[in-house]
Amino acid sequence: MGKAKIYWEDFKTGETVEFGNYRVTKEEIADFAKEYDPQPFHIDEDAASHTMLGGLAASGFHSCAIMMKLICDAYILDAASLGSPGMDEVRWLQPVRPGDVLRIRRTCLESRLSRSRPGTGLCKFVWDAYNQNATHLMSTTGTQMFACRPSGGAV
Amino acid sequence: MGKAKIYWEDFKTGETVEFGNYRVTKEEIADFAKEYDPQPFHIDEDAASHTMLGGLAASGFHSCAIMMKLICDAYILDAASLGSPGMDEVRWLQPVRPGDVLRIRRTCLESRLSRSRPGTGLCKFVWDAYNQNATHLMSTTGTQMFACRPSGGAV
Repeated sequence: MGKAKIYWEDFKTGETVEFGNYRVTKEEIADFAKEYDPQPFHIDEDAASHTMLGGLAASGFHSCAIMMKLICDAYILDAASLGSPGMDEVRWLQPVRPGDVLRIRRTCLESRLSRSRPGTGLCKFVWDAYNQNATHLMSTTGTQMFACRPSGGAV
Repeated sequence: MGKAKIYWEDFKTGETVEFGNYRVTKEEIADFAKEYDPQPFHIDEDAASHTMLGGLAASGFHSCAIMMKLICDAYILDAASLGSPGMDEVRWLQPVRPGDVLRIRRTCLESRLSRSRPGTGLCKFVWDAYNQNATHLMSTTGTQMFACRPSGGAV
Protein backbone atom coordinates (compact mmCIF):
# COMPACT_ATOMS: atom_id res chain seq x y z
CA MET A 1 0.00 0.00 0.00
CA GLY A 2 3.04 2.27 0.29
CA LYS A 3 2.95 3.10 -3.39
CA ALA A 4 -0.66 4.28 -3.51
CA LYS A 5 -1.25 7.33 -5.65
CA ILE A 6 -5.03 7.37 -5.48
CA TYR A 7 -6.94 7.98 -2.26
CA TRP A 8 -10.59 8.31 -1.26
CA GLU A 9 -10.52 12.05 -1.94
CA ASP A 10 -9.84 11.38 -5.61
CA PHE A 11 -13.34 9.99 -6.27
CA LYS A 12 -16.11 12.57 -6.66
CA THR A 13 -19.84 11.93 -6.42
CA GLY A 14 -21.41 12.14 -9.88
CA GLU A 15 -18.13 11.71 -11.73
CA THR A 16 -18.10 9.33 -14.71
CA VAL A 17 -14.95 7.87 -16.23
CA GLU A 18 -14.41 5.30 -18.97
CA PHE A 19 -11.63 2.79 -19.28
CA GLY A 20 -10.69 -0.61 -20.61
CA ASN A 21 -10.09 -2.37 -23.87
CA TYR A 22 -10.37 -6.13 -23.30
CA ARG A 23 -10.87 -8.52 -26.20
CA VAL A 24 -12.75 -11.67 -25.18
CA THR A 25 -11.78 -14.78 -27.09
CA LYS A 26 -13.64 -18.02 -27.68
CA GLU A 27 -10.79 -19.88 -26.00
CA GLU A 28 -10.92 -17.75 -22.85
CA ILE A 29 -14.71 -18.13 -22.64
CA ALA A 30 -14.38 -21.92 -22.81
CA ASP A 31 -11.39 -22.08 -20.45
CA PHE A 32 -13.17 -20.11 -17.73
CA ALA A 33 -16.38 -22.05 -18.20
CA LYS A 34 -14.73 -25.47 -18.03
CA GLU A 35 -13.30 -24.47 -14.68
CA TYR A 36 -16.25 -22.66 -13.11
CA ASP A 37 -19.45 -22.71 -15.18
CA PRO A 38 -19.50 -25.69 -17.56
CA GLN A 39 -22.92 -25.09 -19.10
CA PRO A 40 -23.03 -26.00 -22.81
CA PHE A 41 -23.69 -22.44 -24.03
CA HIS A 42 -20.37 -21.32 -22.54
CA ILE A 43 -18.28 -24.18 -23.94
CA ASP A 44 -19.72 -25.83 -27.03
CA GLU A 45 -20.38 -23.66 -30.09
CA ASP A 46 -22.78 -26.10 -31.69
CA ALA A 47 -24.75 -26.80 -28.52
CA ALA A 48 -24.85 -23.05 -27.79
CA SER A 49 -26.48 -22.32 -31.13
CA HIS A 50 -29.51 -24.35 -30.04
CA THR A 51 -30.02 -22.53 -26.72
CA MET A 52 -31.78 -19.31 -25.73
CA LEU A 53 -28.44 -17.51 -26.12
CA GLY A 54 -28.28 -18.39 -29.82
CA GLY A 55 -24.53 -18.94 -29.70
CA LEU A 56 -21.47 -19.06 -27.50
CA ALA A 57 -21.42 -16.49 -24.68
CA ALA A 58 -19.27 -15.90 -21.63
CA SER A 59 -20.36 -17.03 -18.18
CA GLY A 60 -21.84 -14.14 -16.24
CA PHE A 61 -19.21 -14.78 -13.61
CA HIS A 62 -16.52 -14.56 -16.28
CA SER A 63 -17.89 -11.17 -17.33
CA CYS A 64 -17.69 -10.07 -13.69
CA ALA A 65 -14.08 -11.27 -13.49
CA ILE A 66 -13.14 -9.37 -16.66
CA MET A 67 -14.78 -6.25 -15.23
CA MET A 68 -12.65 -6.65 -12.11
CA LYS A 69 -9.49 -6.98 -14.21
CA LEU A 70 -10.35 -3.72 -15.99
CA ILE A 71 -11.07 -2.04 -12.64
CA CYS A 72 -7.70 -3.25 -11.29
CA ASP A 73 -5.78 -1.94 -14.28
CA ALA A 74 -7.64 1.37 -14.37
CA TYR A 75 -7.31 2.43 -10.73
CA ILE A 76 -7.37 -0.19 -7.98
CA LEU A 77 -3.74 -1.26 -8.32
CA ASP A 78 -2.67 2.39 -7.89
CA ALA A 79 -5.11 3.10 -5.09
CA ALA A 80 -5.04 2.79 -1.32
CA SER A 81 -7.74 0.14 -1.68
CA LEU A 82 -9.21 -1.43 1.44
CA GLY A 83 -11.39 -3.96 -0.33
CA SER A 84 -15.11 -4.23 -0.84
CA PRO A 85 -17.98 -5.59 1.23
CA GLY A 86 -19.87 -6.69 -1.87
CA MET A 87 -21.88 -5.92 -4.96
CA ASP A 88 -25.54 -5.29 -5.69
CA GLU A 89 -27.73 -5.27 -8.74
CA VAL A 90 -25.48 -7.39 -10.95
CA ARG A 91 -27.36 -7.49 -14.25
CA TRP A 92 -26.33 -9.55 -17.27
CA LEU A 93 -28.16 -7.56 -19.93
CA GLN A 94 -26.79 -9.01 -23.16
CA PRO A 95 -24.53 -11.98 -23.96
CA VAL A 96 -20.78 -11.33 -23.99
CA ARG A 97 -19.65 -12.90 -27.27
CA PRO A 98 -16.30 -14.10 -28.61
CA GLY A 99 -14.62 -11.12 -30.24
CA ASP A 100 -16.33 -8.55 -28.03
CA VAL A 101 -14.02 -5.80 -26.80
CA LEU A 102 -15.13 -4.70 -23.35
CA ARG A 103 -14.88 -1.29 -21.79
CA ILE A 104 -16.28 0.02 -18.52
CA ARG A 105 -18.03 3.24 -17.62
CA ARG A 106 -17.74 3.92 -13.91
CA THR A 107 -20.04 6.41 -12.20
CA CYS A 108 -19.56 7.38 -8.57
CA LEU A 109 -23.04 7.38 -7.03
CA GLU A 110 -22.01 8.31 -3.50
CA SER A 111 -18.83 9.08 -1.63
CA ARG A 112 -18.65 9.42 2.14
CA LEU A 113 -16.34 8.95 5.10
CA SER A 114 -16.73 5.83 7.20
CA ARG A 115 -18.54 6.48 10.47
CA SER A 116 -16.80 3.60 12.23
CA ARG A 117 -13.32 3.55 10.68
CA PRO A 118 -11.26 6.74 10.95
CA GLY A 119 -9.21 7.54 7.88
CA THR A 120 -11.41 5.41 5.62
CA GLY A 121 -13.83 6.49 2.91
CA LEU A 122 -16.43 4.55 0.96
CA CYS A 123 -17.47 5.02 -2.63
CA LYS A 124 -20.56 3.50 -4.16
CA PHE A 125 -20.04 2.99 -7.86
CA VAL A 126 -22.06 1.72 -10.78
CA TRP A 127 -19.96 -0.03 -13.41
CA ASP A 128 -21.51 -0.44 -16.86
CA ALA A 129 -19.85 -2.70 -19.40
CA TYR A 130 -20.13 -2.05 -23.15
CA ASN A 131 -18.71 -3.73 -26.21
CA GLN A 132 -17.19 -2.18 -29.37
CA ASN A 133 -20.69 -1.51 -30.73
CA ALA A 134 -21.74 0.36 -27.59
CA THR A 135 -24.07 -2.50 -26.66
CA HIS A 136 -24.77 -2.34 -22.94
CA LEU A 137 -23.71 -5.79 -21.73
CA MET A 138 -23.67 -5.64 -17.96
CA SER A 139 -24.33 -3.34 -15.04
CA THR A 140 -23.24 -3.72 -11.42
CA THR A 141 -23.26 -1.53 -8.36
CA GLY A 142 -20.80 -1.99 -5.53
CA THR A 143 -18.98 -0.27 -2.74
CA GLN A 144 -15.21 0.10 -2.56
CA MET A 145 -13.31 1.29 0.49
CA PHE A 146 -10.22 3.48 0.29
CA ALA A 147 -7.82 5.04 2.74
CA CYS A 148 -7.96 8.81 2.98
CA ARG A 149 -4.94 10.74 1.79
CA PRO A 150 -2.40 10.96 4.61
CA SER A 151 -2.19 14.47 6.00
CA GLY A 152 1.00 16.10 4.78
CA GLY A 153 1.27 13.54 1.97
CA ALA A 154 2.00 14.51 -1.61
CA VAL A 155 -1.09 15.50 -3.57
CA MET B 1 -31.47 -29.35 -22.80
CA GLY B 2 -32.95 -32.68 -23.93
CA LYS B 3 -31.40 -34.48 -20.98
CA ALA B 4 -32.84 -32.23 -18.28
CA LYS B 5 -34.07 -34.07 -15.21
CA ILE B 6 -34.83 -31.04 -13.06
CA TYR B 7 -37.54 -28.55 -13.94
CA TRP B 8 -39.00 -25.43 -12.33
CA GLU B 9 -41.54 -27.52 -10.40
CA ASP B 10 -38.71 -29.21 -8.49
CA PHE B 11 -37.82 -26.06 -6.53
CA LYS B 12 -40.07 -25.24 -3.57
CA THR B 13 -40.33 -21.92 -1.78
CA GLY B 14 -38.70 -22.18 1.63
CA GLU B 15 -36.72 -25.32 0.82
CA THR B 16 -33.07 -25.41 1.92
CA VAL B 17 -30.48 -27.80 0.51
CA GLU B 18 -26.75 -28.11 1.07
CA PHE B 19 -24.12 -29.25 -1.39
CA GLY B 20 -20.50 -28.92 -2.38
CA ASN B 21 -17.08 -29.88 -1.16
CA TYR B 22 -14.50 -27.67 -2.90
CA ARG B 23 -10.98 -27.32 -1.53
CA VAL B 24 -9.44 -23.95 -2.39
CA THR B 25 -5.67 -24.01 -2.89
CA LYS B 26 -3.08 -21.26 -2.67
CA GLU B 27 -2.15 -21.97 -6.28
CA GLU B 28 -5.70 -21.60 -7.54
CA ILE B 29 -6.18 -18.37 -5.59
CA ALA B 30 -3.04 -16.91 -7.16
CA ASP B 31 -3.81 -18.24 -10.66
CA PHE B 32 -7.27 -16.68 -10.70
CA ALA B 33 -6.00 -13.43 -9.24
CA LYS B 34 -3.15 -13.04 -11.73
CA GLU B 35 -5.67 -13.29 -14.52
CA TYR B 36 -8.54 -11.21 -13.12
CA ASP B 37 -7.80 -9.50 -9.80
CA PRO B 38 -4.04 -9.01 -9.31
CA GLN B 39 -4.17 -7.22 -5.96
CA PRO B 40 -1.26 -8.19 -3.67
CA PHE B 41 -3.45 -9.83 -1.00
CA HIS B 42 -4.67 -12.37 -3.57
CA ILE B 43 -1.24 -13.25 -4.98
CA ASP B 44 1.67 -12.57 -2.64
CA GLU B 45 1.66 -14.30 0.76
CA ASP B 46 4.14 -11.90 2.32
CA ALA B 47 2.47 -8.75 1.02
CA ALA B 48 -0.91 -10.15 2.06
CA SER B 49 0.21 -10.54 5.66
CA HIS B 50 0.65 -6.76 5.89
CA THR B 51 -2.83 -5.89 4.62
CA MET B 52 -6.25 -5.63 6.26
CA LEU B 53 -6.88 -9.26 5.27
CA GLY B 54 -3.96 -10.45 7.39
CA GLY B 55 -2.97 -13.09 4.86
CA LEU B 56 -3.67 -14.55 1.46
CA ALA B 57 -7.36 -14.67 0.48
CA ALA B 58 -9.28 -15.42 -2.69
CA SER B 59 -10.62 -12.66 -4.89
CA GLY B 60 -14.30 -12.06 -4.20
CA PHE B 61 -14.92 -12.78 -7.86
CA HIS B 62 -13.06 -16.07 -7.50
CA SER B 63 -15.34 -16.99 -4.60
CA CYS B 64 -18.32 -16.22 -6.83
CA ALA B 65 -16.91 -18.42 -9.59
CA ILE B 66 -16.36 -21.32 -7.17
CA MET B 67 -19.93 -20.92 -5.94
CA MET B 68 -21.12 -21.15 -9.55
CA LYS B 69 -19.10 -24.33 -10.09
CA LEU B 70 -20.74 -25.90 -7.04
CA ILE B 71 -24.17 -24.77 -8.28
CA CYS B 72 -23.47 -26.32 -11.69
CA ASP B 73 -22.40 -29.64 -10.22
CA ALA B 74 -25.26 -29.77 -7.74
CA TYR B 75 -28.21 -29.07 -10.04
CA ILE B 76 -27.79 -26.68 -12.97
CA LEU B 77 -26.15 -29.17 -15.32
CA ASP B 78 -29.08 -31.54 -14.79
CA ALA B 79 -31.71 -28.83 -15.00
CA ALA B 80 -33.71 -27.23 -17.80
CA SER B 81 -31.86 -24.01 -17.00
CA LEU B 82 -32.72 -20.88 -18.94
CA GLY B 83 -30.04 -18.67 -17.44
CA SER B 84 -30.13 -15.82 -14.98
CA PRO B 85 -30.78 -12.11 -15.25
CA GLY B 86 -28.36 -11.35 -12.42
CA MET B 87 -27.48 -11.35 -8.75
CA ASP B 88 -28.15 -9.08 -5.82
CA GLU B 89 -26.72 -8.58 -2.38
CA VAL B 90 -23.37 -10.25 -3.03
CA ARG B 91 -21.63 -10.04 0.36
CA TRP B 92 -18.06 -11.10 1.01
CA LEU B 93 -18.35 -11.64 4.75
CA GLN B 94 -15.06 -13.36 5.62
CA PRO B 95 -11.88 -14.05 3.65
CA VAL B 96 -11.73 -17.32 1.70
CA ARG B 97 -8.35 -18.80 2.68
CA PRO B 98 -6.06 -21.41 1.15
CA GLY B 99 -7.17 -24.79 2.46
CA ASP B 100 -10.79 -23.77 2.99
CA VAL B 101 -13.29 -26.37 1.84
CA LEU B 102 -16.39 -24.63 0.55
CA ARG B 103 -19.96 -25.81 0.66
CA ILE B 104 -23.16 -24.00 -0.25
CA ARG B 105 -26.52 -23.77 1.46
CA ARG B 106 -29.23 -22.82 -1.02
CA THR B 107 -32.58 -21.49 0.14
CA CYS B 108 -35.43 -20.88 -2.28
CA LEU B 109 -36.91 -17.51 -1.30
CA GLU B 110 -39.55 -17.35 -3.99
CA SER B 111 -40.75 -19.47 -6.88
CA ARG B 112 -43.22 -18.23 -9.49
CA LEU B 113 -44.24 -18.65 -13.10
CA SER B 114 -43.09 -16.04 -15.59
CA ARG B 115 -45.84 -13.61 -16.52
CA SER B 116 -44.32 -12.93 -19.94
CA ARG B 117 -42.80 -16.27 -20.96
CA PRO B 118 -45.13 -19.28 -21.08
CA GLY B 119 -43.61 -22.49 -19.79
CA THR B 120 -40.95 -20.67 -17.80
CA GLY B 121 -40.58 -20.36 -14.05
CA LEU B 122 -38.32 -18.18 -11.94
CA CYS B 123 -36.73 -19.03 -8.61
CA LYS B 124 -35.15 -16.49 -6.32
CA PHE B 125 -32.45 -18.15 -4.26
CA VAL B 126 -30.04 -17.13 -1.54
CA TRP B 127 -26.77 -19.02 -1.65
CA ASP B 128 -24.67 -18.99 1.51
CA ALA B 129 -21.10 -20.27 1.40
CA TYR B 130 -19.43 -21.85 4.43
CA ASN B 131 -16.05 -23.41 5.06
CA GLN B 132 -15.15 -26.59 6.97
CA ASN B 133 -15.43 -24.71 10.27
CA ALA B 134 -18.95 -23.50 9.45
CA THR B 135 -17.65 -19.95 9.05
CA HIS B 136 -20.10 -17.99 6.94
CA LEU B 137 -17.93 -16.71 4.08
CA MET B 138 -20.27 -15.30 1.48
CA SER B 139 -23.93 -14.67 0.76
CA THR B 140 -25.60 -13.93 -2.56
CA THR B 141 -29.15 -13.69 -3.81
CA GLY B 142 -30.05 -14.26 -7.42
CA THR B 143 -32.76 -15.40 -9.77
CA GLN B 144 -32.53 -18.46 -11.98
CA MET B 145 -34.98 -19.30 -14.76
CA PHE B 146 -36.05 -22.84 -15.58
CA ALA B 147 -38.35 -24.48 -18.08
CA CYS B 148 -41.47 -26.04 -16.65
CA ARG B 149 -41.78 -29.81 -16.84
CA PRO B 150 -43.23 -30.80 -20.20
CA SER B 151 -46.77 -32.05 -19.87
CA GLY B 152 -46.78 -35.79 -20.23
CA GLY B 153 -43.05 -35.93 -19.55
CA ALA B 154 -41.49 -38.38 -17.12
CA VAL B 155 -41.57 -37.24 -13.51
